Amino acid sequence: MTQELRVVPLRGIPELEDGDDLAAILADAAARAGGLERGDVLVVAQKAVSKVEGRVVELAGITPSDRARELAGATDPRRLEVILQEAREILRVRPPLVIAQTRHGFVCASAGVDASNAKGPDTLVLLPVDPDGSAASLRRALLERTGVEIGVVISDSFGRAWRRGTTDVALGVAGVTALVDLSGQRDSAGYELHATEIAVADEIAGAAQLVMGKTDGIPAAIVRGLQLSGDGRGSDLVMPRERDLFR
Amino acid sequence: MTQELRVVPLRGIPELEDGDDLAAILADAAARAGGLERGDVLVVAQKAVSKVEGRVVELAGITPSDRARELAGATDPRRLEVILQEAREILRVRPPLVIAQTRHGFVCASAGVDASNAKGPDTLVLLPVDPDGSAASLRRALLERTGVEIGVVISDSFGRAWRRGTTDVALGVAGVTALVDLSGQRDSAGYELHATEIAVADEIAGAAQLVMGKTDGIPAAIVRGLQLSGDGRGSDLVMPRERDLFR
Repeated sequence: MTQELRVVPLRGIPELEDGDDLAAILADAAARAGGLERGDVLVVAQKAVSKVEGRVVELAGITPSDRARELAGATDPRRLEVILQEAREILRVRPPLVIAQTRHGFVCASAGVDASNAKGPDTLVLLPVDPDGSAASLRRALLERTGVEIGVVISDSFGRAWRRGTTDVALGVAGVTALVDLSGQRDSAGYELHATEIAVADEIAGAAQLVMGKTDGIPAAIVRGLQLSGDGRGSDLVMPRERDLFR
Repeated sequence: MTQELRVVPLRGIPELEDGDDLAAILADAAARAGGLERGDVLVVAQKAVSKVEGRVVELAGITPSDRARELAGATDPRRLEVILQEAREILRVRPPLVIAQTRHGFVCASAGVDASNAKGPDTLVLLPVDPDGSAASLRRALLERTGVEIGVVISDSFGRAWRRGTTDVALGVAGVTALVDLSGQRDSAGYELHATEIAVADEIAGAAQLVMGKTDGIPAAIVRGLQLSGDGRGSDLVMPRERDLFR
């Protein structure tokens, strides 16, 4: 992990719709940025993936349950209903803020449910059903199309306990290491490092966010130079409940 | 935030000792890597800063209190004593894991107390007394020495609630934005983004970690191309207690 990294934004990607061929669109954008190289990690914003997978709901079609009305406070109970449908467990509620665990195990605001940038507050975008599966499909399709072995990270902006602001993290991973386990490795002076795992896939997602921004319409970036090819998964990054001190 | 980033590891930095001129050492390392450019962010590992500031204690000189003995379980109570001295509050204990809030307000394992890589488990390194002050001093000294206006981030590896693995975050910041506030900004389709702050200084620290590693003896990296010059502080990233849903 010691050579120079480059983080290259992929520009000119149009607003995405259900059924769009995301691999083709990303391959074209990557070609315009100079092409993919073996070992690159392509980071793609979750919303881009969700939109082409049709993970979009209109509030107009939602009937809120009693529980949704109760949790919504003064906010729209239909939005809470969608969050409840995506959630395995609600951890905290302070309207309009809801911290929930998703069916995948991720703990985040609104169970990952967010307003569509393109269509306004009455259209909600949900997380992909299977972010690791989505990452693997995208990786396969890009390999077929370009002939280049890359890794894929599907990223989203999550808040954190105790710290202000969001950082981008990895929801889905394919072809790249998610966690680097240093336990048993020795540091530069020969002492053993204990119980240290580095969430490199989250750091890759965060590095990509620095060039993707939130308002620029850049939903993807290439991170080059990592030497982290591997078979990590986004689900590796979820803390198992029995080891979780904050549930 | 849309141009290409480069993340350049700074090699050949020797093991650091109390009183070393860190700015001179970093300026030399940066010169070997091609030199600093205006707007670069220099990310420096907390341990490097702590060592030159003499924030090192020997377990041999520590007498544990009753509370330290009680919390230590089967682990060394002298280590717990040092953690208690650094902590404002203990959040969770599952020996040997202690999650504490430091005097600065950071919530992290062992109140930031860690074994020295170089000197083994009986020498502990503490967080800098004032990470933002350390970052500002380093920035000033590098400006005087090189004539180049850069930003400085002092980074450390923190665990997170609900997710496995550590990511590097910003403890001290100078000359660079820590949080980008998007509230009131409009996205590419013209809708207002609500309540969105991005913890860019943490993402910068994480990006640098990808080239610094833990075992390579690379305690610093340059992140180039950010266009995030500003006057953020690491303390901006601490969630105020009244807004914290997880305390």
